[in-house]
Amino acid sequence: MSQKRQIRLGAFISGPGHHVAAWRHPQSKADGRFNFEHLKGVTQLAERGLFDAVFLADGLASRNRPSADGRTSGGAGFEPVTLFSALSAVTQHIGFIATASTTYEDPYILARKFASLDVLSGGRAGWNVVTTGGAEAAGNFGLEAHPDHALRYERAREFVEVVRGLWDSWEDDAFLLDKESGYFYDPSKVHLLNHQGKHLRVRGPLNVPRPVQGHPVIVQAGASNDGRELAAQTAEVIFTAWQNLEEAQAFYRDLKGRLARYGRHPDELKVMPGVFPVIGRTEWEAKAKFQELQDLILPEVGLAQLSGLIGGFDLSGYPIDGPVPELPETNNNKSRQALMLKIARDRKLTIRELYLSIAGARGHWQLVGTPEQIADQLQSWFENEAADGFNIMPPVMPGSLHDFVELVVPELQRRGLFRTSYEGRTLRENLGLARPENRFAADRRRSESSAAE
Amino acid sequence: MSQKRQIRLGAFISGPGHHVAAWRHPQSKADGRFNFEHLKGVTQLAERGLFDAVFLADGLASRNRPSADGRTSGGAGFEPVTLFSALSAVTQHIGFIATASTTYEDPYILARKFASLDVLSGGRAGWNVVTTGGAEAAGNFGLEAHPDHALRYERAREFVEVVRGLWDSWEDDAFLLDKESGYFYDPSKVHLLNHQGKHLRVRGPLNVPRPVQGHPVIVQAGASNDGRELAAQTAEVIFTAWQNLEEAQAFYRDLKGRLARYGRHPDELKVMPGVFPVIGRTEWEAKAKFQELQDLILPEVGLAQLSGLIGGFDLSGYPIDGPVPELPETNNNKSRQALMLKIARDRKLTIRELYLSIAGARGHWQLVGTPEQIADQLQSWFENEAADGFNIMPPVMPGSLHDFVELVVPELQRRGLFRTSYEGRTLRENLGLARPENRFAADRRRSESSAAE
Repeated sequence: MSQKRQIRLGAFISGPGHHVAAWRHPQSKADGRFNFEHLKGVTQLAERGLFDAVFLADGLASRNRPSADGRTSGGAGFEPVTLFSALSAVTQHIGFIATASTTYEDPYILARKFASLDVLSGGRAGWNVVTTGGAEAAGNFGLEAHPDHALRYERAREFVEVVRGLWDSWEDDAFLLDKESGYFYDPSKVHLLNHQGKHLRVRGPLNVPRPVQGHPVIVQAGASNDGRELAAQTAEVIFTAWQNLEEAQAFYRDLKGRLARYGRHPDELKVMPGVFPVIGRTEWEAKAKFQELQDLILPEVGLAQLSGLIGGFDLSGYPIDGPVPELPETNNNKSRQALMLKIARDRKLTIRELYLSIAGARGHWQLVGTPEQIADQLQSWFENEAADGFNIMPPVMPGSLHDFVELVVPELQRRGLFRTSYEGRTLRENLGLARPENRFAADRRRSESSAAE
Repeated sequence: MSQKRQIRLGAFISGPGHHVAAWRHPQSKADGRFNFEHLKGVTQLAERGLFDAVFLADGLASRNRPSADGRTSGGAGFEPVTLFSALSAVTQHIGFIATASTTYEDPYILARKFASLDVLSGGRAGWNVVTTGGAEAAGNFGLEAHPDHALRYERAREFVEVVRGLWDSWEDDAFLLDKESGYFYDPSKVHLLNHQGKHLRVRGPLNVPRPVQGHPVIVQAGASNDGRELAAQTAEVIFTAWQNLEEAQAFYRDLKGRLARYGRHPDELKVMPGVFPVIGRTEWEAKAKFQELQDLILPEVGLAQLSGLIGGFDLSGYPIDGPVPELPETNNNKSRQALMLKIARDRKLTIRELYLSIAGARGHWQLVGTPEQIADQLQSWFENEAADGFNIMPPVMPGSLHDFVELVVPELQRRGLFRTSYEGRTLRENLGLARPENRFAADRRRSESSAAE
């Protein structure tokens, strides 16, 4: 019996909320990025709303520095896996998608922390694979310069394969734990990886059992050509940023179309665009809520945020009410830079108009309306090959997430578009993703069956 | 009013227990190293016993391999910080001392995960600084060979300084969170480290706020000369392994004597020898309990454990009932090798006698007796300049920890030697260690006071 396809939901948690001025809002937690009780409450709220997962972005440098003026929020928060381990102990069902870098982290240590999170949470870990967009990280890792975009993606492909191989070090039934005979494990079911590649050399075995999910769910968020190809090859969920149905559809079809090349079925990759929902009981109330946030934006802060999103170029020297200048292609986050420039050109925006227009959703899909209007929009993308689910970016935390859970989730449930209870025990089961077979067990099975022929 | 000096207690948690055959004991959890519910129960039990902290050892390679015979336990468990973050969310008071390597980990990432654990646990993190004793790790990190002992310690000294510097990136009052003015932080209170050393180059600032404790508690466990010097310079707790009062006293005095050289007071470093306690209501019962464990040791396993402790040299080619051979000095754990050889020589033990004698405590202090006898022994070391506290290594988990909490702790409390409730909110406060001043704030204070002269 085939079950009706349903919407997957991620809660993109970001301290005080996603709007750039959220921390100044009277109902937000200004210290939300490093306030554990707040993040615990937010995560338990998302679980109450039956979200598949909470998601945390990450970088390996502080964006706030002695040279800045002090009005940009953020710059300090929790390391995602550390935070999510703690949150997993106070939740039962929700998954945890943590960002970690293939450019600056080490594969053995990264494989270990995600396997640990997956085992201790009973199979609820996901890894958002990033190559690190911000060049500032290089200085924290003894490098003169941030590695080139193409080189980062080349290393990323090798890195993901190594990490997956390490997760297969132990077969699922490797531990015998036979007190009587004294056999703790079966040596034929533990494996050396012996990887020798261009960027990495890793022997193994990993010193953590195989994850409950086989592998934590692999997530990707790059939308450049390199990013799409990495996603097609390795990802099971992709987070993405589109402003309208047509662009989202084009991306969705492009991505799904790349999968066959890697022997994968379109269902093996869930496309989840970011959505920034401002929810009111009336349209007027929603618009007023949004305007209240917009009015809290200081020009310096809006400009600084835009500079970051447009590839790390300082825009403060240009007239704020003049056009967005031509810029060289960045070595940081290429797809986000392209999106910003496209928004500016398409709508003929000044610098000020551009930063105001992206201050909430940062280029993601912004929805301001009633629960029914928002559900209509989500349904439209979901049913028209633009999305398999959405990564919800609440403007103010915890209030906007509360609105979504209390108002939009029931509306989606009424329409039969969203679960009314968790289907599975693991993140993978809830997302409808298959548990990967252990590569070494698969090799043995294949060689045994060919020997029997 | 000065408070009476009291014993500090760590619970060294190790899955099914510390005896090499513990996992085969009918009452142990064979999968204890990777069973989260078990480790949660053990930690909550230690907290009920008012322990200062739980402690987890760590290595960066699996000791169990396809080439081995399957009877050695371990080889897989949780990454310590990931585990401890989860455990911190289900406890209130107990501290978490996690082992992490200065040889193979990266200082920015390490500083981050410990700062995260400290902030989310409300100030309960400790870092056991190791240079990694096992040469097997090298192959997991793309190295041909394990770095030399002296070089590892040289890097360790620089590494600890860098991590401490990163923890000071943000002053305690750096975050203004002023919704009205829009000032999120005070730029004069966030600092670049700009470290350029022989082994490391790290810019900073760290992207985590200053830890609740200022710095997580620094722990060390090396007893070689390099290890002692690193401890004297940087450590606040030292775990160590001695068999009798005289040796423990000599170490205690040596260590405390080295502190002045670094401008430190003897109280700033707590010496905590490991203790392996087998507790019975009668002496006969205790001895029977111990013998029950000894009878579960398979010769191959005893020999493999000894080979590891004696510097990684395979002893299986020597007659098991013959003398322990002369061995070259190891590049792994030098002090543990020396201790093993000393035990063999002093007591004229054969290889079999040696592995049997260290199968429980692995060279730590082994106590087999009634709660009163064990309390007598602990009191004797504590009152005679051999120990400030003890790192308890329960033979079987959770049973032996339960015995300690129910029988020995009350006896120590009756004697006024142990707390009857937690004194402080943080690990540092419970251990009686001062909160370190932020180095950048201290520099400013000094320069302001010299300007005022």
